[in-house]
Amino acid sequence: MSIPAVLGLDVGGSSVKLLLAAADASLSSAPEILSRRRIPTPLSGPVDGLVEIAESVLQEHPLVRLVVSVPGIVDEARGVVVRSANIPALDGCPLAERLSSRLDVPVSVINDGHAAAVAEAAWGAGAGSADCFVLALGTGIAGAHVVNGAVVPGAHGFAGELGHITIDPAGAACSCGRRGCLETIIGAQALSAAWNAAGGSGGPETLLHAYASGDARAVAVVQRGASALAEGLLTLCALVDPGRIVIGGGLAREPHDLVRLADRYVRERATFHRVPPIMPATLREWAGANGAVLFGLRRERLAASVR
Amino acid sequence: MSIPAVLGLDVGGSSVKLLLAAADASLSSAPEILSRRRIPTPLSGPVDGLVEIAESVLQEHPLVRLVVSVPGIVDEARGVVVRSANIPALDGCPLAERLSSRLDVPVSVINDGHAAAVAEAAWGAGAGSADCFVLALGTGIAGAHVVNGAVVPGAHGFAGELGHITIDPAGAACSCGRRGCLETIIGAQALSAAWNAAGGSGGPETLLHAYASGDARAVAVVQRGASALAEGLLTLCALVDPGRIVIGGGLAREPHDLVRLADRYVRERATFHRVPPIMPATLREWAGANGAVLFGLRRERLAASVR
Repeated sequence: MSIPAVLGLDVGGSSVKLLLAAADASLSSAPEILSRRRIPTPLSGPVDGLVEIAESVLQEHPLVRLVVSVPGIVDEARGVVVRSANIPALDGCPLAERLSSRLDVPVSVINDGHAAAVAEAAWGAGAGSADCFVLALGTGIAGAHVVNGAVVPGAHGFAGELGHITIDPAGAACSCGRRGCLETIIGAQALSAAWNAAGGSGGPETLLHAYASGDARAVAVVQRGASALAEGLLTLCALVDPGRIVIGGGLAREPHDLVRLADRYVRERATFHRVPPIMPATLREWAGANGAVLFGLRRERLAASVR
Repeated sequence: MSIPAVLGLDVGGSSVKLLLAAADASLSSAPEILSRRRIPTPLSGPVDGLVEIAESVLQEHPLVRLVVSVPGIVDEARGVVVRSANIPALDGCPLAERLSSRLDVPVSVINDGHAAAVAEAAWGAGAGSADCFVLALGTGIAGAHVVNGAVVPGAHGFAGELGHITIDPAGAACSCGRRGCLETIIGAQALSAAWNAAGGSGGPETLLHAYASGDARAVAVVQRGASALAEGLLTLCALVDPGRIVIGGGLAREPHDLVRLADRYVRERATFHRVPPIMPATLREWAGANGAVLFGLRRERLAASVR
């Protein structure tokens, strides 16, 4: 069973998600997974920790490539973590070089949001569409337009920031320094705050549960959030005109009430817009690790075609 | 002087603009123009009228291609005018076929907004930037993101509609059926209405003249318009992140006060955004005809490379 493999490690603030796939796996759908694990993130010595994880895999499989997805700003061409908010010990770390010199395996480092979006577009709810906007609803709201398998970066690498378009000019202050951004209404913290102000307790999960059971206060809070999200999606359709919209992140989980409600509002309010299918993401918290594996498989396929 | 040429005809509601360039002209900058004319649009018999115009050119130059740019919805692959609001006689007309059979010259038909945007990006204020968003401010507001010389169409051909993103959720009714779109604040009619409501008389030209001379009412109206435009441009930077923004149309004319004021507001209000250069368009009312010539030159260059 010692077949050459691609290892994807999605490094989050609390856990590292590991996915291992055969190096000759198909690219057209999610590959068969040889190993899937979740390991606590080694925050104090992340490089040593990642080496240890990879070495345990190397005992069973030769690796053609290790791909690490990391939250934060990544210089993918040089394999350097420029800045990582969640794992400060990686700030400025030439991670690809450090890992490859100790493991003797080629290593790539990529941004976790881009990795997740590309995987969701290729193997998740975006499968079959060449033009897919992937939105992650969490504490922050991250978006990425994936066309023909690659994120459209914009001229300065800043495209897709749907969380920071203005929905309510008179709205609350946003972490970005402006007011009334979509994130100030539909971000997890904003939604919790609205829910608590309405007399509810707990976070977004409790809110969505109360919504599902018909709690009138929860219905009002979720409707306001879905309405703001719908306005953001209408702006997205007018400016970007994507072929599909996929919504993931904690707030988009089963039973997908927020996504369904936003979808209904978008269709009710659209006029000239071409509204594409709006679907909940399917890879969930494994999207980043899938993206790392996808990146590795593609990279090896490309290298093989050039040899 | 009978050199092979490309003829561009930009057909507007009131005039046809004619540009003629040598077929071997350079593509890297605006070509030397062999002939430039403006002819009243033959509204009652547009096909006969365009044949007559082309025939007068053919007496002096052999044409390798005629490119007609038309306002409205164009099926460029088939050369058919699907729908033209300004020239109803062209509705449904297989214009390329009609003209080429009578003139014995290859003919292409393209949308005038796309033609103007591509020309402005290549030969106008966008020259030198591979990623340029071109905005036309007139009665309507049209936008097109031009990357590497081609308009980014979106999945359904509807991308770039910056005029129809919501700026003021409680704003005026828009022709598109929604409320508070950018066009309801900064469109030529909206601006005229605001100016007249403030006690001014005349249209946008008078308004901008009064602004330049320091009229307090005009300053208030123009500031409100430039502020709305700035909000639209900030949303554009967040979602699309263009490398340059070029603003044309009647409201962006010399001395470019509206563009300059919007540029100032965008820079004052930007936080995380990467604000690119914001520049007034330079090809003005000849942008569409330039785009037609550019399309023809490219098409011939491509054909030559395949031969």
